[in-house]
Amino acid sequence: MEDKNMLMIPGPTPVPERVLLAMAKHPIGHRSGDFGKIMAEVTENLKWLHQTSNDVLALTASGTGVMEAGIINFLSAGDRVLVGVNGKFGDRWAKVSQAYGLQVEIISAPWGEPLDPELFRAQLEADKEKAIKAVIITHSETSTGVLNDLETINKYVKEHGESLIIVDAVTSLGAVNVPIDTWGLDVVASGSQKGYMIPPGLGFVAVSEKAWLAQEKATLPRFYLDLKPYSKSAAKNTTPFTPPVNLIFGLQESMKMMKAEGLSNIFARHRRLTEATRSAVKALGLKLLAPDSATSTAVTAVEPAPLKAEEIRAIMKKRFDIALAGGQDSLKGKIFRIGHLGFVSDRDILTAISALEATLQEIGHEGLKPGAGVAAAAQVFAQS
Amino acid sequence: MEDKNMLMIPGPTPVPERVLLAMAKHPIGHRSGDFGKIMAEVTENLKWLHQTSNDVLALTASGTGVMEAGIINFLSAGDRVLVGVNGKFGDRWAKVSQAYGLQVEIISAPWGEPLDPELFRAQLEADKEKAIKAVIITHSETSTGVLNDLETINKYVKEHGESLIIVDAVTSLGAVNVPIDTWGLDVVASGSQKGYMIPPGLGFVAVSEKAWLAQEKATLPRFYLDLKPYSKSAAKNTTPFTPPVNLIFGLQESMKMMKAEGLSNIFARHRRLTEATRSAVKALGLKLLAPDSATSTAVTAVEPAPLKAEEIRAIMKKRFDIALAGGQDSLKGKIFRIGHLGFVSDRDILTAISALEATLQEIGHEGLKPGAGVAAAAQVFAQS
Repeated sequence: MEDKNMLMIPGPTPVPERVLLAMAKHPIGHRSGDFGKIMAEVTENLKWLHQTSNDVLALTASGTGVMEAGIINFLSAGDRVLVGVNGKFGDRWAKVSQAYGLQVEIISAPWGEPLDPELFRAQLEADKEKAIKAVIITHSETSTGVLNDLETINKYVKEHGESLIIVDAVTSLGAVNVPIDTWGLDVVASGSQKGYMIPPGLGFVAVSEKAWLAQEKATLPRFYLDLKPYSKSAAKNTTPFTPPVNLIFGLQESMKMMKAEGLSNIFARHRRLTEATRSAVKALGLKLLAPDSATSTAVTAVEPAPLKAEEIRAIMKKRFDIALAGGQDSLKGKIFRIGHLGFVSDRDILTAISALEATLQEIGHEGLKPGAGVAAAAQVFAQS
Repeated sequence: MEDKNMLMIPGPTPVPERVLLAMAKHPIGHRSGDFGKIMAEVTENLKWLHQTSNDVLALTASGTGVMEAGIINFLSAGDRVLVGVNGKFGDRWAKVSQAYGLQVEIISAPWGEPLDPELFRAQLEADKEKAIKAVIITHSETSTGVLNDLETINKYVKEHGESLIIVDAVTSLGAVNVPIDTWGLDVVASGSQKGYMIPPGLGFVAVSEKAWLAQEKATLPRFYLDLKPYSKSAAKNTTPFTPPVNLIFGLQESMKMMKAEGLSNIFARHRRLTEATRSAVKALGLKLLAPDSATSTAVTAVEPAPLKAEEIRAIMKKRFDIALAGGQDSLKGKIFRIGHLGFVSDRDILTAISALEATLQEIGHEGLKPGAGVAAAAQVFAQS
């Protein structure tokens, strides 16, 4: 049905009406006092969301752009870095690092499994010369729905002492607890079209004092992605280059909504949506890609074999106007992914699961107990 | 008066209501077939606007980001480049070039005057070894309202044969004729918040076949700003990284409006608005920064000395809710700038000029003939 779309993908995520309307306001001059006031408010709220008193900078860029900024600002050609790779995004950060001539050591796990923190410990402990300048980790691997154990890996980085920890938190920030200052995370990158509940176009990067010290010695070339001018401008409630004014209007509104809900409620909601989704998928006799012990709270990946993932996605879209994500790269055609990140409620999960049940009935999924998925999700909601 | 803002700055420019409402639509998945159709339409219309059959790529970035992409994709460290500098933006491209280790030769003119094409000719003719790999030019220098003679400089670049011409057309594209294929321009960068009539957040870069050949040998490091993946994706009506979906909705709408108006009408309107503004400013006894022979059709810079530029701006804002731009860097406090770019009509010029007259009356501008500005603008309109 036209214009009846429902987004259940891990980005762009649904956008609240009041955010959409804020974005439809006439732009104002980005060098005006009025805009400066908005930037001041937004910057303060971004620090609240990031649980940090350090810089949180907003760039006109997609997630890849800010993550690249998070890497190239703090390193020099030839620097040794450990990159965790267990999905498409970890793979991308390895490619960025290689494109800039870093000495990249990949610590990998199969797609669908979490990174093993002990492999990081071994490399970091063996590095007596402190040659490892950064450990680069994807916290929530959007391509597989796996949550990597950032807390433990970061602990080993801290024991190493020299290395920075650089984190892709694109689908974890605002979906699971990422206490930047408490953990001492150095660089944390994220994007607007995820937990922030606004459309794509803005990227964010939090930077620790230790990272700023490293930046002074870092020689990789950069200009648009050089974070220092962003930091200097942010202190004056402005930006070095023209910001996406209307997206900032949207961000101002969505940050108010997030503050009203509160961080612990936001995290509890995402945990609840994840548990309900996983419980329902199991009750429907389908296989989950990520193990219970390492699940992203942003997205759930389902391996429906012998059913065809793309057939399920097509029916969900055509008959129920629900957009699910497919698999990427090596998982193409093998999985579908249900996004439950940002402006998503318990009701949305019931809707998506009931449509999934109906789809499985249409395909003729062997052993399907009609109603079992919704019942399982409802039980999670009843108990939480 | 609250919410009674009128933007007369050279970006962000006013946005039509239908574009704002298009942006307020719910985002859709950027990997969906529906979005692919939008990208196909938008890409075709971008080529029309750029008067080219080559690639026109859209990046999530501000103008500086795409201009940097336009430089770093086609060059290697140590390459010799000529950079024209007669304002803030020319200055910025010299800094980008230096940040990437290019061998930069600056050809400058005082701020407020155009670049002398003969200085480019001399350097290019003397370069028998064809060491000059690129000439980097700001077409319309937004900081001063000067239009540089791109056509003539480009002619000398073509006679050189080896060098690329890389153009900042941020405030010229969609405001004055830039026939990319006819002139054979290699790289042309622009930004959404200008002639495109949409808010900031999208940058565009047109790339010639000659530039793509140069890219194959260009070794400056890049990933997010690497244009090749954008080109490959554009051929499949998609993007390598998440695009700013809602800004693309806005672009789809604004491109329809531009096509309906037609290129020659758009250029004639900008010329008319410029002439009316300049004629009115002269009639009010104020000095224009740029000479008649080299005027940008996007913005008019006024040197009101002995009157204070910032006082004029403050009254225009406070009493009439009209935002004018101030001077930048060395021109700070010395000029104000009237933007007449994008969604600006004859009526807007009458409005701005009448408010400027009223402001000058309030300040007590010696020798002011009340009504002379509006009369001069009206005469331009009557004759065109």
